Parts: sequence; structure tokens; C-alpha cells
Amino acid sequence: MRRKIYLKRRDLEVGLKDYMEELERVGFFENDLERIPTDESLGRITGFPVYAKRNVPHYTSAAMDGIALKSRSSFGASESSPKILEIGKDFIFVNTGDPIAKEYDAVLMIEKVRIVDENKVMIFEPVFPTNDLRPIGEDITVGEMIVTRYHKVEHYDIPLFLAAGVFELDVLKRLKAVVIPTGDEITSPREVERSGKIPETNSSMVKAFLIENNVDPVVNDIVPDVPEEIESVIRDALKDFDIVFTIAGSSAGSKDFTYRVLEKIGKVVVHGINIKPGKPVILAVVNKKPVIGLPGFPVSLDVVLQKVVKPIILRKYKTYEKSKKVIKAVSSIRMSSSISEEEYIRGVLANVKNRTVFSPLKRGAANLISLTRHDSILTVEKGKVVVDEGEKVRVEYYGGKLEKKILVVGSHDLLMDVLADLLKMEDHEIVLSSSSVGSMGGIIAISRGYAHMAGTHLFDPKSGEYNIPYIEKFMKDYVLVNMSYRIQGLMVKRGNPKGIKGLSDLTRDDITFVNRQKASGTRVLLDYLLEKEGIDKSKINGYNVEEISHMNVAVKVKEESIDVGMGIESAAKVMRLDFIPIAKERYDLLIDREFAKTSLFEMILKVLKSERFKSEAERIGGYDLTDSGKVIRG
Amino acid sequence: MRRKIYLKRRDLEVGLKDYMEELERVGFFENDLERIPTDESLGRITGFPVYAKRNVPHYTSAAMDGIALKSRSSFGASESSPKILEIGKDFIFVNTGDPIAKEYDAVLMIEKVRIVDENKVMIFEPVFPTNDLRPIGEDITVGEMIVTRYHKVEHYDIPLFLAAGVFELDVLKRLKAVVIPTGDEITSPREVERSGKIPETNSSMVKAFLIENNVDPVVNDIVPDVPEEIESVIRDALKDFDIVFTIAGSSAGSKDFTYRVLEKIGKVVVHGINIKPGKPVILAVVNKKPVIGLPGFPVSLDVVLQKVVKPIILRKYKTYEKSKKVIKAVSSIRMSSSISEEEYIRGVLANVKNRTVFSPLKRGAANLISLTRHDSILTVEKGKVVVDEGEKVRVEYYGGKLEKKILVVGSHDLLMDVLADLLKMEDHEIVLSSSSVGSMGGIIAISRGYAHMAGTHLFDPKSGEYNIPYIEKFMKDYVLVNMSYRIQGLMVKRGNPKGIKGLSDLTRDDITFVNRQKASGTRVLLDYLLEKEGIDKSKINGYNVEEISHMNVAVKVKEESIDVGMGIESAAKVMRLDFIPIAKERYDLLIDREFAKTSLFEMILKVLKSERFKSEAERIGGYDLTDSGKVIRG
Repeated sequence: MRRKIYLKRRDLEVGLKDYMEELERVGFFENDLERIPTDESLGRITGFPVYAKRNVPHYTSAAMDGIALKSRSSFGASESSPKILEIGKDFIFVNTGDPIAKEYDAVLMIEKVRIVDENKVMIFEPVFPTNDLRPIGEDITVGEMIVTRYHKVEHYDIPLFLAAGVFELDVLKRLKAVVIPTGDEITSPREVERSGKIPETNSSMVKAFLIENNVDPVVNDIVPDVPEEIESVIRDALKDFDIVFTIAGSSAGSKDFTYRVLEKIGKVVVHGINIKPGKPVILAVVNKKPVIGLPGFPVSLDVVLQKVVKPIILRKYKTYEKSKKVIKAVSSIRMSSSISEEEYIRGVLANVKNRTVFSPLKRGAANLISLTRHDSILTVEKGKVVVDEGEKVRVEYYGGKLEKKILVVGSHDLLMDVLADLLKMEDHEIVLSSSSVGSMGGIIAISRGYAHMAGTHLFDPKSGEYNIPYIEKFMKDYVLVNMSYRIQGLMVKRGNPKGIKGLSDLTRDDITFVNRQKASGTRVLLDYLLEKEGIDKSKINGYNVEEISHMNVAVKVKEESIDVGMGIESAAKVMRLDFIPIAKERYDLLIDREFAKTSLFEMILKVLKSERFKSEAERIGGYDLTDSGKVIRG
Repeated sequence: MRRKIYLKRRDLEVGLKDYMEELERVGFFENDLERIPTDESLGRITGFPVYAKRNVPHYTSAAMDGIALKSRSSFGASESSPKILEIGKDFIFVNTGDPIAKEYDAVLMIEKVRIVDENKVMIFEPVFPTNDLRPIGEDITVGEMIVTRYHKVEHYDIPLFLAAGVFELDVLKRLKAVVIPTGDEITSPREVERSGKIPETNSSMVKAFLIENNVDPVVNDIVPDVPEEIESVIRDALKDFDIVFTIAGSSAGSKDFTYRVLEKIGKVVVHGINIKPGKPVILAVVNKKPVIGLPGFPVSLDVVLQKVVKPIILRKYKTYEKSKKVIKAVSSIRMSSSISEEEYIRGVLANVKNRTVFSPLKRGAANLISLTRHDSILTVEKGKVVVDEGEKVRVEYYGGKLEKKILVVGSHDLLMDVLADLLKMEDHEIVLSSSSVGSMGGIIAISRGYAHMAGTHLFDPKSGEYNIPYIEKFMKDYVLVNMSYRIQGLMVKRGNPKGIKGLSDLTRDDITFVNRQKASGTRVLLDYLLEKEGIDKSKINGYNVEEISHMNVAVKVKEESIDVGMGIESAAKVMRLDFIPIAKERYDLLIDREFAKTSLFEMILKVLKSERFKSEAERIGGYDLTDSGKVIRG
């Protein structure tokens, strides 16, 4: 009677870690990719970041039911002196979502329109250009990253990919696995009465488990307890499959041939784990592939599938389990809600300063991007009209580990998406969510504890210093890290048809401009330069028309009648616009002090200083990464 | 400009309820079944209860590594006078799980065996028959219900079905759905640049959502905004599909043709729901099938899919969402655990008396049934050796709504499984878990607040009364309901080869008996009858060998050398044994007072009194249901 001896017995955590490290070392966790049609990509994992190939929406549309009109035709209208508009000439009727032809530059909601007859309407107020228009690229603009690599495709991501012209995706290949039952005493469950043997049912469980976990399984015939046969079947299996499972007949007992075979042909990393049930497991590597000896008792088997096999599959697939749960959080902003309806507000959750923060995404039933970006939904009951900033809310959460969520606000930059993507290569469970609220908005959010990091590029003319004077109006205890220097300038149409040379051209009568929102870094810089050069803002045609990101300004210049906007070189390059450089600015990351103590922040610094980050920045263009990752204050 | 008018607008809850009722009325929630191979049944829903076609395990096996021996050869062994056993004659070596040949009737663990040479061992203690044997039918016996109808097949259920000889399953048919995008303004996302139209991407979301929810979707071509065409496509679709979805092009806008078509050809139950986003939804029934008009905005669409479509699919599939979460509970019993290993203990959770109770299932790595029955796992860390009764524990829970869980203990009866199954027809989310701890064990569990109901059939010779005298030793405030009268008697092999006529035969030398555990109703009754008839227990061959259920006694008589056991007629019938009736007994349900106030309990009473319950009892045989559902105390 030989007793079982576990030569390489470990605690679960240690054993799994040792095995994962060995699998990493032999390259098992590197992924092969395959290209598939986007509309068959449900549940698959992206192998590369996915970039938009067209703007979403790619057309201007009505944000309200009402009339699309030429805004000039409304000027001078008032309650006391309404204006009459003529259909086809001044306006057309539109429904929410309808594309708006180029001749119309605004929408007025139907509630503000009095219908005179079928050809005429009366209006009582002037309408500003872009009023209630949903602009081109509101969801995402050409060249922007829609999702990072290692993103699991959900049902609501597919419409966004298709709308953005992404018809094929490179996704991680599915694993092929073989399940090899072993043992003289076992036979097919249909044969037991005749044979006097015991039924082999374990392979059916492993097969179903693998299917459930997106692995394609093949079940081998039962292999008798003959070491040579076991060896030959495993060797053959390694040619065709990515992962090999053997199952002991019943218990390991005295006939533990698999262990000896695996010691001979490969490396047994773990033999036996201190868990009950589940102890008799063998974790080996042969020909750089995992070969796993599963225990023969069904309950042990299920434990090993859940506790050992599942984490290996998740890591190979660069994914994690999402679970639906209700989480207590605080709202990061004040929101109004409809009194007569139950409202669902999508957002992202993150743990900031010992509390969980819910940051709502842009609302609006048409916003495809809010589906892809959200990880949580706040339900505001009918009758409740306001959710206050800081108010405690209960939110349904669908994401991964909250401790791996990074929330970034402030001024957006294309490199932020690169950072999000490269962090995935450090740890695929990290999710970096960013939203664009402008530099000043970002500083305020950090000072109030609603985000981990904020991108900021605010120039202070008095001190000639970037960011710090603004930050220190709100907080003294913070960490500031440089991300890049960027070239600011004028984005103009390709070929520069209007021959724009500099800021002084902005006041020309034949030129239309689009501005950025107040307190954004670019707006602050522009206003400073205009003043310095003595240029009269009021003479700039379009100074009061605001967009909230570089990319949205770029898309206006690209797609509409706007001639010029101010923004960074990288945005112009991505949108294939011409660019007139004006100034070099510093783009920093303001970091919450608590967050700066975490290993996530260390990882961010590592990425910012990496060659890969630099080469991605070079590929986009318009960046100077000399000081990237340098701690300026902290 | 026509505005949208929602004629049948409702709040979500009301609208969904109205629609569900209409769907119920037209028979949509009745299910068609299909027969599929068991090993392809992962994730499918059973349409009927599944009964075991053979015992699991169907053989006696070793519960320990050691020797299988003839127990008689060990009698007289002691430390001072060990016995030497000869291989092949007195014993063989066995591993845990090995089938044990009929000539051996016990196992002795290897730690208690001294090996003399390869043919001889020395033992130092007598071994009782059945010691460390895993009996036939320990998981489940022939004729027992493995799972009720509407059970979702998990990966770990499949081995049990196969082991029990169930190679095919009748499962609910998958739904076939068609998705019909409508609108003049939309086109395929690949065609937008050329056509100037807007991309139709919503159908890709609906399709993926349906796949995720186990519905087979087909996407129709885009149908223009022409009522006649919409009508004709819907009419055609109703011939081939179980459920029809239309999607508005962008917004409902002024071109809300679908509503008018559905009003014409069927019944619109709801038009507009007070949710945001998601309002413009149409819930109609045409030709007894659901036709659902989905909103055209993607965020609205996703809300309606989650809040309206998903509940309809879940109800049609008689299933519910299981989520994995950690729940605080109290342990219902004291358990020991291994000091050197992390141990995972499977059990069931239920809310009893304002707390959540964790009831462990039978442990043992070979217990297939513990996989199918469990809904939760308690992890006992390495180093912790005891979990006390009432101790607070944190348990991973995988089940449905805890408020729909019913926990039954006490004496088991085949009708309890029938009750569990018929409750599913009342409300498919109800899960009744039962475990067999004997009548007395059941009373104690109820008195301590660890279960909702307990089956009990304890005869009190002094009062001539059933159950009440025993219960009132522990509690005064309770509810008692009759489930059945049952015939108790002697189960003997088919044809009664030993000519057993009554209890007095039990002391015969040529007869072997198997008993029930102390404090079980059957044991109490037997002891009373033996005393009354003046029969000497000590002369009964096997009086000290105990089994814990009627079915396990029956399987012993059926499969082994045991001649007779006492038990109920239904067990004998299911196992196809002959039966000698001895007494009629009352089997009651002891109900926790709090639980008796719930609607679940009302539903139980309704089922107990139903014709369906009576006819199931008649089919099994051995029951008198005159008083079933009658409240005896309460």
C-alpha cells in the first residue's frame, strides 16, 4: 500500500501564484488574436485599443422635437414683436434625432413655436446658432480611442463600434482545451451496468464548466492507468490544444501515474494544495503549456475548477468577473431629474478618500458613448427632482474590483486614453475612466474629493507659472506630476484655404471661429494671448460659441463651415487638419494625496516614464515628453 | 407637426404587470419542451422533475484509503491481542472511492493497519459491519427526484444526472425572436456615407442582448415608414417567431406608425412608460404573441431591454438571475474543520426569524448531490477547527431571492419533493430545500430557529398522540399541519423469499435487519411495537446498523444481503420491494410561527390541498391524504 505523498504541496494562494508565474515565464499569457466581424463580437475581448474611424454621430442632428431654422432669421424676435418664418425658406419641422441639413444652424423646441398654418410658424425669441443641435462627434470623434485593449464587448458596445465605422475587431483567440479522463476502474455512464465499472462523469462537468467560461473543450476517451499511454495521449494533446486537463479516475490513491508522467515530460510546479476538498491537484507546465491534473472526486473537482482553473482562464483572457450589486455612494455633482418619470442615470463608480463616488455620464437618450463608458446606474425615483452634490445614493454596479478603478477628470488629452490602455498591460483589471470637465473643473473635483486625478494646463499670466497658482486657491496638500508639454495653436482646414497666419486673423470678417468653454486651459491661454496682442475679442466671429474639447473643436473645423479653432497639435493631426503653432504649454496631472500613496499611482508613474508611452505619443504627434512622470509637487 | 401622444402610458411596475397578465391570459407563458442529451443541457431549464433511474452511487465503495475486510475476521482483535489478516482471504487494499466487492462488509483506514508483509496485515481493534463504507444510494436512490421542474442545469448537475442514468432531459424550448428595424431615415452602417442616411445600429444591440439571454434572434431588413409594409412584415414574422421586436428609426417622432399598426392587428396593452430614458415603448399582443415596439434611441433601448424585455424572458424561461455575493449568516450546526487546510463547506441559505441561516450539506468529496443542492459556500480558513452552532459566518451565495427560499428539515418523505416541484408551478422563483435529520432533529431545529418547516411522525405511546407531546417539550408557540397518513411496515425483498410475516420474524437467526437512526419517527415506532409485542431487540441481527432515511433502508434491502427493514410503503413501492403493513402513522409539518404568517406558507397549504398533490401521492402509493393541509395546531 503506497500512500499519497504530495511533494510540492502549497497553500492555495502560494500555489496559484507560483503556477501563474511559471506560466507567465513560459509565455502562456501572451495572446493570439483573430479578426472577427463586430456584430459577432459579443463577450469577446479586444486585443488592441479600438479607434473611431468616423465621427459619432457623423451628422448634425436635432436634440429636440421642433423646427430647424436659420438662426439669422430669428434675430430680433421677441414676445412683443414675434417673427413669422416660412417653411422651406427659413425652417423645416424636425423630430429629435433627425439629421439637420447644412443650411440650418439651430433648432427651436416645438413648445416655443406657434403654428400659423402648414407653411408658417411664429417665434417669440431669437435663437443662437447651434441651439439644441447635437453636434457631429458628440459621442466620439475620428481617431479617438473608443475602448482600450482587453475590453469585454457588451451588447451595448456593438452599436457604437458600427456607428464609428469599426466593422471588424481584433479579439483574443478562444482557448482550446482537452479533457482526458484516466483510470482502469471507470467507464462511460451508459456502460456501467454491463461492465461492473464505475461511471466516468467528471469529464462532463469539466466540459460544461469550460463552455461556461468561453473555452472550447474536447473530451478524450478514457485512458487506462498505464504511464506510457498517459504520456503518449498528453504529448499528442499538446500539439492541438492550448491547455490539457487530466482527471484521475476516482481518487489519486496509489495509482497516481499522472504525477510521475508530468515530472518526466515537463515541470510539476504544484502537487497538492491545502484545500478541502480539492487537495489532490497537479499544476504542471509541459512544452510551455499548462497541464492540469484534476482530482477525481466531483466536489474536489468543482473546487479546483473554481479556485484554480477559473483564475487562470480569466488571466489568459485578460478579463474579470463582473457582478451586479447595489453599492452606497455619493453623487459627485448636483443633478436635476424629471418629476413625472423614474430616471436612470448612467455613471462610473470609484473609491476616492474612503468613500465611493458616483460620477454621472452625459445624459441623453442618444448618447451611445454613455453605454460603453458606464459601469453603474443610479435610479432616481419618480417625484424626486434633485440629487445634490455629495448626496448619499444607492447605485447598481456592474463593474470589476472597485479598488482597481481610477477616476480622471479635468482637461482631456488623447494621451489619457493611451495611459488607460497601457495600464491594462500592467494589470488587466485596472479600469481608468476619464471625463472632460476642463482644467478648472478638474481642480475643483480633486479639491472636493470626487476624483483621483485631473488633467490641467492653466497658465497664470501674473506668475508665468502653470497650474500651481490655480490649484493653490483650492488646496495646499496635493501631488502634481507632469504628463507632457503640448503645442497649442490654430487648427484650420486642410490646405489653410483662408490663409490664416495667426491670432490677428481671427477678427477678419470672412473668418468664423469656435471657442472653448470658460475656465478651460485653452480658453485661459487664448484670452491671455489676445489681451497681450491687443486683439478685440468682440470682433471675433464665433467667440461665444463654445465646445468642450480639443477634438470637438477640431471636428467643427473639419466638418462644418467654421474656419478656425484653438487647440492642441495632436487633435489637429488626428483630424488631419492644418495647424499653426502658437505656444508650448505644460499639461500636468493633479493627484489626490491619498491616491498618490497607492500602488496604482506607482504604476501610472511607471507607464508615464515608459518607452511605450513615449512612442505612442510620437505616433500621435504634437507632444514633448521630456518631463513625463516627473513629480513637480509632492 | 403632430406631437407624440401616449394613449396607454403607465408607470413601469404597473405597465409590466398589465402586460404580463395579458401574456399569461393568452397562454404565452406556457412552455413547449424538447428532449436533449444530458451532456448538452448546460444552462437549460428542466420542463419536468428529473427522477433517478439508478442509485448514486450504484455500488458500495470505500470511504477511506485502507483495507476492505470481512468484519467477522476482525472480531476479538485488540491492542493486546491483534489479529493477522490474509490478503485475498480476509481483506484487500483499497483506495478511497474504490468499489467494494460483496464479500467484504467494512473498511478500516490505513492508519489503523500495520503491514506485516505484502500478503498480511495486523489489526488492533474489531471493525463493525459497514464501517467506512460509502453505501449504495448515498447521493440519491432510484425513483427519487433529483431536481424539480424549472431547474437551471449547472455544470455540476450533469455528472449527477449521468450517474443516475438520466441520459436525456426534457427542457424548455428556446425562444425564437425577430428584430425588425423601421424607418425611412436609416440604413446599414456600411452604407451611410454613400446614402446620406443615418446608421441603423440598434438591431445589433438587440440581437446581442437576446443571445446573451438565451433567445435565438433573427434581424429583419429595415422596413420603411409605410404602415402597410410594417403590418405585412409583422404578420409574416408572427408565423415563424415566438416574439417580435420592432425598433423605431430614431425617435418615435411624428412617424409613429408601429403603434397604429399594432392597434389595428392586435391589442396594445401599454404605450409609453414613465421612465427616462425609455418612455416610447409599445407592449402589444398579436395572435397570442408578444409584439414589442422598442424605442429608437440607444440608451432608451437598453433601458427597455433591461427593465421590460428581460423580466418577460426570465418569466417565460421560468428562471431568475443568480448573483454571486457575500452574505452574513449564522451556522445552523456545530462543524469541525481541518486545521491544516482551507475548507469549503457547501450548504443552503434561508432567511429564518430575521436572520439568514446557513445549513451545511453533507460533506465529503464524493457527494455529487451536495453540488446540485448547494446554493452557498462557507470558507473555513486554515487553522480554524470549529464553527459553532449560531456562529456568525460570511457565506458566498449563488442563489435567487432569499425571501423565496424555504428550508425544510426533519423526517424526509417523497411527497416533500412533490411539494417542492408543485410550488414551482405557483411561482417558479420558489426554492424548497429539504434535508433529512429525522423527526426529532427537525423539531429541535425549528425550536432553535434554524428552519421554516420540519416533517415529523413521532408516536407517543403514553398519550397515543402523534408529534405534539414531543414538540411541546421544546416549544409552545408553533403551527402544525398534516401532510399525510402513511403506512409503516416491513420492506422485504421481492417475492419475500424468507417468508417474513411480521415483527416477530426479526429475531430469527437466518434474518438480517437494518435499523433507522435513534429519534427518527420510524425507530420510535419500532421500539414501541417491539416492546408492546415483547420482542427482545438484542436478538435482532442488525438492530445496531442504522440508516438515515426510508430510501436508504430500502436500497439496503434491495441491493445487499439485508433481508428486512422498517419503513414506509411509498419507499418500498418506489424501490419495487414487497411490503408487510404494520401500522398507519401521521406525518405532520411543524411550522415556525413567523413563517406561518407568510404568503409562501399560504401557497404551501394551497398545494397540500390541491388535486395535483393528491394525484401525485396516489401515483407513488402508500399515502392517505384525507387531512393534507389541515391545520392541527395554529
